[in-house]
Parts: sequence; C-alpha cells; structure tokens
Amino acid sequence: MQRVMLVKIGGQITDDPRKLQRVLGDFSRLPGPKLLVHGGGRVADSFLQKQGIVPRMAGGRRITDGPTLEVIQMVYAGLLNKNIVAGLQALDCPAFGLSGVDGNAILAQKRPVADVDFGLVGDVQRVDAELIKNFLELNLIPVFCALTHDGEGQILNTNADTIASEIAAALTPYYEVELFYLFDKRGVLRDPMQEDSTISEITSESYRQLKEKNIIKEGMKPKMDTAFSALKKGVGSVHLMRYDALGYPRQGTRVVL
Amino acid sequence: MQRVMLVKIGGQITDDPRKLQRVLGDFSRLPGPKLLVHGGGRVADSFLQKQGIVPRMAGGRRITDGPTLEVIQMVYAGLLNKNIVAGLQALDCPAFGLSGVDGNAILAQKRPVADVDFGLVGDVQRVDAELIKNFLELNLIPVFCALTHDGEGQILNTNADTIASEIAAALTPYYEVELFYLFDKRGVLRDPMQEDSTISEITSESYRQLKEKNIIKEGMKPKMDTAFSALKKGVGSVHLMRYDALGYPRQGTRVVL
Repeated sequence: MQRVMLVKIGGQITDDPRKLQRVLGDFSRLPGPKLLVHGGGRVADSFLQKQGIVPRMAGGRRITDGPTLEVIQMVYAGLLNKNIVAGLQALDCPAFGLSGVDGNAILAQKRPVADVDFGLVGDVQRVDAELIKNFLELNLIPVFCALTHDGEGQILNTNADTIASEIAAALTPYYEVELFYLFDKRGVLRDPMQEDSTISEITSESYRQLKEKNIIKEGMKPKMDTAFSALKKGVGSVHLMRYDALGYPRQGTRVVL
Repeated sequence: MQRVMLVKIGGQITDDPRKLQRVLGDFSRLPGPKLLVHGGGRVADSFLQKQGIVPRMAGGRRITDGPTLEVIQMVYAGLLNKNIVAGLQALDCPAFGLSGVDGNAILAQKRPVADVDFGLVGDVQRVDAELIKNFLELNLIPVFCALTHDGEGQILNTNADTIASEIAAALTPYYEVELFYLFDKRGVLRDPMQEDSTISEITSESYRQLKEKNIIKEGMKPKMDTAFSALKKGVGSVHLMRYDALGYPRQGTRVVL
C-alpha cells in the first residue's frame, strides 16, 4: 500500500509566522501524498476579543456559542486556512484548503450536554475517505481546518487533534498512514522543564504507566488519547515532535500500540 | 457538449438569509453540473467597522489594504463560503467551497497602480478549468468566493462578477456554459423605478445604444462588461435576473453577442 503522511500543526505554530513558514517549507518537501490539519490558537482569541466576545474554556476545550463559532469559522476557514494554502502554493505545493463541511468531508454530531455544555462542538461521526483519496489522486494536497458540520446546516467546532486522528484512521483502508503532531516541545517529555528528557517511544503499556506516574497529564492526555485512537484503527505510527523536526524521522516521540 | 450552469449571487442576496435560502433551494434543484460564485456585500463592511477599519471605495469598487484584506478573507472564505456550503449540503447538494487560492484555481496579478491604487486587488490571469472539470466529474458542486492569489503567497481581492465571467469563459472548451447573475432587480430595467420595464434581450449593438441613451450606466456597466467579456470568450448566454427567478429561463434579461 502507498504511504501517506498526515501532519497536524497546533496553535503555537499557526500563531508564529516564523515557525509556520518553517513547517510549510518542510511539509512542501515531503515526498508522496500528504495532508495538513491545522488548529486555530490565539489568533481566534484576539479576534473574539475585538468582537467583544470573552473566550470561555472548560477542561482545556473551548465552549462555542453562536457568535464564537462565527469568529472561529472566519479565523480558521478564512484567515488561517487560506494563508496556509497561499503559502504552500508559493512553494509549488498544490495545496487545497477545506473544512469538514466541504464535500461533506467530515460529518459530526453536536456533542450531547453532560456536565458541561460545550455548545456548537461536534464529535466526528464519519470521514469521507473516498473524497480525500480522490483529491490525493488528483495530486492535490488537502489542508483541513478544524470545522465539521451536522449535515443539517449547522457548522460545528471540532478539536484539531481529533480531526487529524479521525482522518488518519479513515484513510487506513487505502494507505499506510503516518500521523505527525507538531508542537513546541521536542516530544513527550519525562520532565517538562528538560527538553532533552524526550521519551523516544510510547506503547499502550508504557502510556498507562506514564499516566499513573503523572508524567503524562492535563493537555497531553487528550492528545495521546487521539494518537492511540488512530493506532487502534489501523494507523501505522504517530509521532509527536517539534515543529522544526518534520522530515527527521528519528526525532521526537514515536507512539505505537 | 454537456451543459453547465454558473450562478453568481451578489451581496444583496448573501446579506439576506431569506433571499439566500431561496436561491440555495432553487440552485440545489438545477439539473446537471453547476457552480456557484458569491460576493461579500455589507457583511464585510459590518465586520470592518467592528475591527475599526473604515471601508474605502473608488468607482464603486473597494480599496483593499492589508487589514481590510484580512477581514474580507475571513468573511468571504470563512463565514459566507462555509455557511453557503453547509446550507447546500443540508439540501443534499454536494457543495464544495473554495477560493481562487485553493488548488491554484485562479491566478491573478496585483492591479497596477493607475489613477487609483486599489491595493490588494487582483486581475485574473488564468483559471484552472481542468481542476474545476475534475471537481464537476467527481459530482462536486464548486462554490467560489471572490478571492484569488498571485502564486507568490499574496491573496488578492477580486470582483465576484469578474470571477464568474472568467470561470465561465475558461470552461467553454469543455462545456456549453450558461452564466446567471442574480440580484435584486428583475433584470436590466429601462426605467430603474419600474420593475416591469425589464429589457428581455440585450445584444452588443443594443448595449452600445443603451449606454449612449444613459439607460445602462454606473454599476450596471462593469457588470454588463463582464457579461460581454464572457460571451466573447465563448459562453453561450448570460442572464441577469432576480434572485427568485433561477430555474425560470424566460425571466430577466438575456445577454447575447
């Protein structure tokens, strides 16, 4: 089976033009079919503030009401997605921007209200892998922003790590998929203060132990959970690495089942 | 040759949820391959104001500086484009949103500074008709917002009528193209105060006379010029009609060479 690389970049990268440019350069040089998924970061917060909307979070995740979704939609699908695509095009990378709404690429369900009402937040139900495969076969490089829809006209905000994980999983019947999460750290660190304490490999078993010892906690837990979710659905490997390490496969943390 | 219908909707329609819904319903029921092109309208102005940016116009066209482009990009490609696509998806229409940046669909050149410096405004150089044909053959319905790029990383604001005209013209080697401009009036009116004074057909010759008699003037002139530009490049017919007349081919003004 042909290999495909899916790269997810977080807010620390999209917020910093220098880091973003570094990633786009490295990404454009990756051989073979590939995809990019990007989050939003603080750019959205700054626009929310200018619109007089106070960002609200619960458990590290954004609560999305109607006016917040409007701004998120504008920042993710309009500002960031098109800037990234234009940047890749300038590097002769045939990038093509989309959201989960376009072509019904990612159908989601509004998250049921439990302890917290996250508002207009979607849990992924189905990724249209055939559609993405069609694009890859046309030699287009899909660049996804973190929006989905419910198929009935409602756009939904969806966590970008989850979107990356779900797209990667959906592509496994057609491709050997490698998933890369790029962020600010060298990988999963044994000691958050020590960049050289990167854990080179994490398995299901060591993940359990690292959680017990409280080495993996807070925001890293949901990210690792999306990594293991992808692996359980057939993704070959997941890599967590610093934004400047893309294309250097021995760097960072490799996650396997 | 197969027929394709290209529908352009202006700001008076995207600004009004009731009119927009009517157009999306009619559009979703049009048979065969089709495309939608949308402008921005006053929604952009309202966001520009909230961001403290005063809209500047020259000759009925917007002057686009950096901060203005950012907001336009957000409103056109983020807010409106995705709302329209989500609305069409809810009607089981396999819509797919894009800008001229995506897949390098529409390459443009920054307009040279003459009497007026329009800023980050692009004149279309090349439409990738093969790309659009590929989408249509995948049974996807392209929904274009009015943005292009220069291929070197700069996104450019481009008039939506011009984009519709250029896409229509580019598709003529592959399709028999019909172009529809939808707006608030019943068509080109002999007397702007009389809705029932619609001119049913305009040819190059009668266009010249209507301009001489000052019946066609101001904002209608550039629109008509894009219509004739499309016709000269092989588009079969251009129709100007009210937003609620789509699918009723005997309504409005038919423009032919």
